[in-house]
Amino acid sequence: MPVYAAPVRETKFVLDHIVELGKYDNLPAFANASSDIVGAILEEGGRFSSEVLAPLNRIGDEEGCTRHADGSVTTPTGFKDAYKQFCEGGWTTLSAPEQYGGQGLPQVLASAVSEYVLSANQAFEMYHGLTAGAIASLLVKGTDEQKQMYVPNMVSGKWTGTMNLTEPHCGTDLGLIKTKADPNADGSYALRGTKIFISSGEHDLAENIIHLVLAKIAGAPDSVKGISLFVVPKFLVNEDGSLGERNPVSCGSIEHKMGIHGNSTCVMNYDGAKGWLVGEAEKGLAAMFIMMNAARLGVGMQGLAMGEVAYQNAVMYAKDRKQGRALKPEDRDPDARADNLFVHPDVRRMLMEGKAFNEAARALILWGALQVDLSHQAQTEEERQSSDDLISLLTPVIKGYLTDRGFETAVNSQQVFGGHGYIREWGMDQFVRDARIAQIYEGTNGVQAMDLVGRKIGKDGGRAIRAFFDLLGRDIADAKAAGDPAGIATPLEGAVQHLQAATMWLAQNGMADPNNAGAGAYAYMQLMGLVSLGWMWLKMAGVSARLKDQAGEDKSFHETKIITARYFAQRELVAASTLRKKVEAGAESLMALPVEAF
Amino acid sequence: MPVYAAPVRETKFVLDHIVELGKYDNLPAFANASSDIVGAILEEGGRFSSEVLAPLNRIGDEEGCTRHADGSVTTPTGFKDAYKQFCEGGWTTLSAPEQYGGQGLPQVLASAVSEYVLSANQAFEMYHGLTAGAIASLLVKGTDEQKQMYVPNMVSGKWTGTMNLTEPHCGTDLGLIKTKADPNADGSYALRGTKIFISSGEHDLAENIIHLVLAKIAGAPDSVKGISLFVVPKFLVNEDGSLGERNPVSCGSIEHKMGIHGNSTCVMNYDGAKGWLVGEAEKGLAAMFIMMNAARLGVGMQGLAMGEVAYQNAVMYAKDRKQGRALKPEDRDPDARADNLFVHPDVRRMLMEGKAFNEAARALILWGALQVDLSHQAQTEEERQSSDDLISLLTPVIKGYLTDRGFETAVNSQQVFGGHGYIREWGMDQFVRDARIAQIYEGTNGVQAMDLVGRKIGKDGGRAIRAFFDLLGRDIADAKAAGDPAGIATPLEGAVQHLQAATMWLAQNGMADPNNAGAGAYAYMQLMGLVSLGWMWLKMAGVSARLKDQAGEDKSFHETKIITARYFAQRELVAASTLRKKVEAGAESLMALPVEAF
Repeated sequence: MPVYAAPVRETKFVLDHIVELGKYDNLPAFANASSDIVGAILEEGGRFSSEVLAPLNRIGDEEGCTRHADGSVTTPTGFKDAYKQFCEGGWTTLSAPEQYGGQGLPQVLASAVSEYVLSANQAFEMYHGLTAGAIASLLVKGTDEQKQMYVPNMVSGKWTGTMNLTEPHCGTDLGLIKTKADPNADGSYALRGTKIFISSGEHDLAENIIHLVLAKIAGAPDSVKGISLFVVPKFLVNEDGSLGERNPVSCGSIEHKMGIHGNSTCVMNYDGAKGWLVGEAEKGLAAMFIMMNAARLGVGMQGLAMGEVAYQNAVMYAKDRKQGRALKPEDRDPDARADNLFVHPDVRRMLMEGKAFNEAARALILWGALQVDLSHQAQTEEERQSSDDLISLLTPVIKGYLTDRGFETAVNSQQVFGGHGYIREWGMDQFVRDARIAQIYEGTNGVQAMDLVGRKIGKDGGRAIRAFFDLLGRDIADAKAAGDPAGIATPLEGAVQHLQAATMWLAQNGMADPNNAGAGAYAYMQLMGLVSLGWMWLKMAGVSARLKDQAGEDKSFHETKIITARYFAQRELVAASTLRKKVEAGAESLMALPVEAF
Repeated sequence: MPVYAAPVRETKFVLDHIVELGKYDNLPAFANASSDIVGAILEEGGRFSSEVLAPLNRIGDEEGCTRHADGSVTTPTGFKDAYKQFCEGGWTTLSAPEQYGGQGLPQVLASAVSEYVLSANQAFEMYHGLTAGAIASLLVKGTDEQKQMYVPNMVSGKWTGTMNLTEPHCGTDLGLIKTKADPNADGSYALRGTKIFISSGEHDLAENIIHLVLAKIAGAPDSVKGISLFVVPKFLVNEDGSLGERNPVSCGSIEHKMGIHGNSTCVMNYDGAKGWLVGEAEKGLAAMFIMMNAARLGVGMQGLAMGEVAYQNAVMYAKDRKQGRALKPEDRDPDARADNLFVHPDVRRMLMEGKAFNEAARALILWGALQVDLSHQAQTEEERQSSDDLISLLTPVIKGYLTDRGFETAVNSQQVFGGHGYIREWGMDQFVRDARIAQIYEGTNGVQAMDLVGRKIGKDGGRAIRAFFDLLGRDIADAKAAGDPAGIATPLEGAVQHLQAATMWLAQNGMADPNNAGAGAYAYMQLMGLVSLGWMWLKMAGVSARLKDQAGEDKSFHETKIITARYFAQRELVAASTLRKKVEAGAESLMALPVEAF
């Protein structure tokens, strides 16, 4: 049975010293988040995740969800009870607004807790995770009546939400969708069409399911410009808030997937289901993107969460398993016939990669979640804009790069187990299979790379990326001034120079031939991801160098941070030059073959 | 349903121009392999694979194998009949010696066919694949009586073979094995112990199963030096060749695995089973390594085979699926609402990576298989030694690097499908899950890297690697002299220089601290793998440049080769400098943390 313990201490370190929660207690959400409260929430969220949710993870994988003849869906054994406890514990309400029954806490805290829930049971988290995105869309674009009707029950978890975009013939290219919305006399619409890959589309956890659905109103342009967003409840809601008749939206089948079996991924059939417009007609994509951006950061967190839990298990196994002898006689355990796996440098390589990724990824995502908070709550428009710029720029990187690295970490952690990693009972194969989806959904990682290169770096004349480079430059200069204890400032500076050169190259050559931008996009995203993680290591090592000799601090904890930063500088940042060369290789040889040559 | 067509033309190109089969027709096995016969075998093997074996691949995945209460095992529906046809078609006999009923053809041809069988159905191939390794051990180390008793029926496929190494507490570290062999009065031994992860350990395809088992004879050193190899048939064989009583060796359970469900991976219990020594007592490991080295090359082929079939499906999907618009207006299909996936540079990136890997991997493995043939059959001892040196050096690279890249290719090919890649019915997730095992078994890829760095590069004063560098230097010089049509000679030369520098660094710093060798081993293996694939592209581009304007040649086929080589030079060889830096980073930061810090 796999192990999992929430890394509360690591989270606290990031919240205290990288996010610096304490600096923002003049802002409403943060005022509620005193250090004590944050600590208690993390501890309790961690306990709930490891004690209640983690034991259900393999059950979810083995049983999957069951669709019955009437279209109803049963979740795996234990999920329903756990979901009840999850709601009763208030875990659905953390960052939701107080006026709708939420706790009004910062997003960054909700994100921190979601890591634990995801590590323990990704398939379970998705029932709530998508609800949070649906709430965000309704809060921004919904009418007051819609907010009153749906949001409180979604915040409490009594109802859940879904996102309905994909159709059998289109995913990325939403302009092609065929689902139609015909106006009814009462101002509602009748939706007809088929949506696929709908996570949590139908299940037995909640009393109602609120579907947010993209469709085209009759007469609208048959392109991305003609898309509108609708709210379509499974059960219609009466004016008094009670549930009314069943809406003709139903689960046609459950997909058979590689992983996340505990989540019901449904084909949803809309057979004249009643829906109401959310926001303006033909502005559906913008409304959906509110949800989508939140979802992308959540998916980035899935990368970390799978990396973390897989790594924890690899560490446990490497401590336990004795196999082979240390290369240096003095490292051998004289009382044993073999040494534990930690003595083998190549096993260390996989564990250090996992450790260095997980800790920097956590810092980056929580720093990103802070920007989301600040983009809404910071006191000046300038600060709000600045945070919004940064998180818009880095959202594709957090989604794309961190899910790639999370998958890689899961695969490496499985590798530490040798043959046992391939055996289902050890649980490592589930982490790999579950982690794989995060590279695909909410826009494949290739789409993220194109979003970064095609939209984000050039937006507003490059304002966001200039701000990003300024931040990096300042932190590198500060680290150098402080003596750069981990020896990471100069390697990071070199990597940043590669990133700047690659940015310049794309600006110049992407204009001449847009395929150059497309051909370099993926390597560019990887390069920005690498730099971002390196930046987090620079920051963390700087903090730890300051704190390590202070009274009350755990010296070995901080020394570990400094050594890990040095490892990252020596063995990971060295990839920057190759990534730049891949960007600068351009499109020519990539696009030269005719299709028939494949 | 996934597609598969054997890439016969690609194989022929490699056999004709890289392996240069025609050059060796003075050697016995090759004399049988006229161009016509080779072509017919490839065509027919390809047809059998795609028509008979591929349709059973998903059935094997879904059904798996079933163990019954009496310990017998049923393979998936259709496997038994397909195996019968496989044997009747003579596919088990290709490279086996004629005196035992084989066709006496070169190993390189048997390897070429095995690619097709593996692509079509990896789990199926393993029933025969391990038999071939067992035959090799018996032929080299067995007594004449053993050869007569077992080999003919193993060659015909009437009986299959297994390798029994791993035990619950040890895999890599075979010195720890506990299985005991006690001498019987009749010269045989009684084996007692438990072996795990035994591929094809029990099944219903063959009349008998010949287990080759590592065990320690009572009184032998309790270390790797005390290991002996035994042949333990499932049914004892009477002197007249008929089957006698059932030996007490049985399948205790079938492992639940991430993939290759169609192969029965068994826990085997030896309860006083009768076995006979193969080769000398306490020299079991050497005997097993004959089998193991053959198996490692076979596993490298699995990397290619999964990469190839996954790539073929990604190409098919990319041709079919229309989604989004080309970045350049002139590339857009004016008659369609969306373009096929090939227009997107980032989709091309994944497809070109797959294509460039598969074609070079095929060339490298078949070139390697030729070295196996030459190491036995070349006319002079010097030539035999030279081929043996090269294949010994490159075996860990072929196993380790090609299975990593094959897995990566399967993952990328799955990615091309977007969300559909995650849905089981499309078959892509099976390729990923099946490909994963090849990185783990027959010595994990980390163990391969250590074999390369710790044993192979320094062996005989570095004779093999010097020969390897000589070959590279000569081919690079020749390519330059011929005008280097693909522009790969100089980039490859640069990569070779990085490899040489890394080799030197390891030689110098691995002595001072063996952990430096261990810490750099993986990146070193990757660097040698990259150089080896680049070398194959240099060779293939050179051939195609010579042939492309000749009468009777398909110009576009050769132009494709040259362009793909250029792609490889521009986008893949650029990784060499980073890999070298990873080698030269040494062990310090990797090994610095105490175990408690993880």
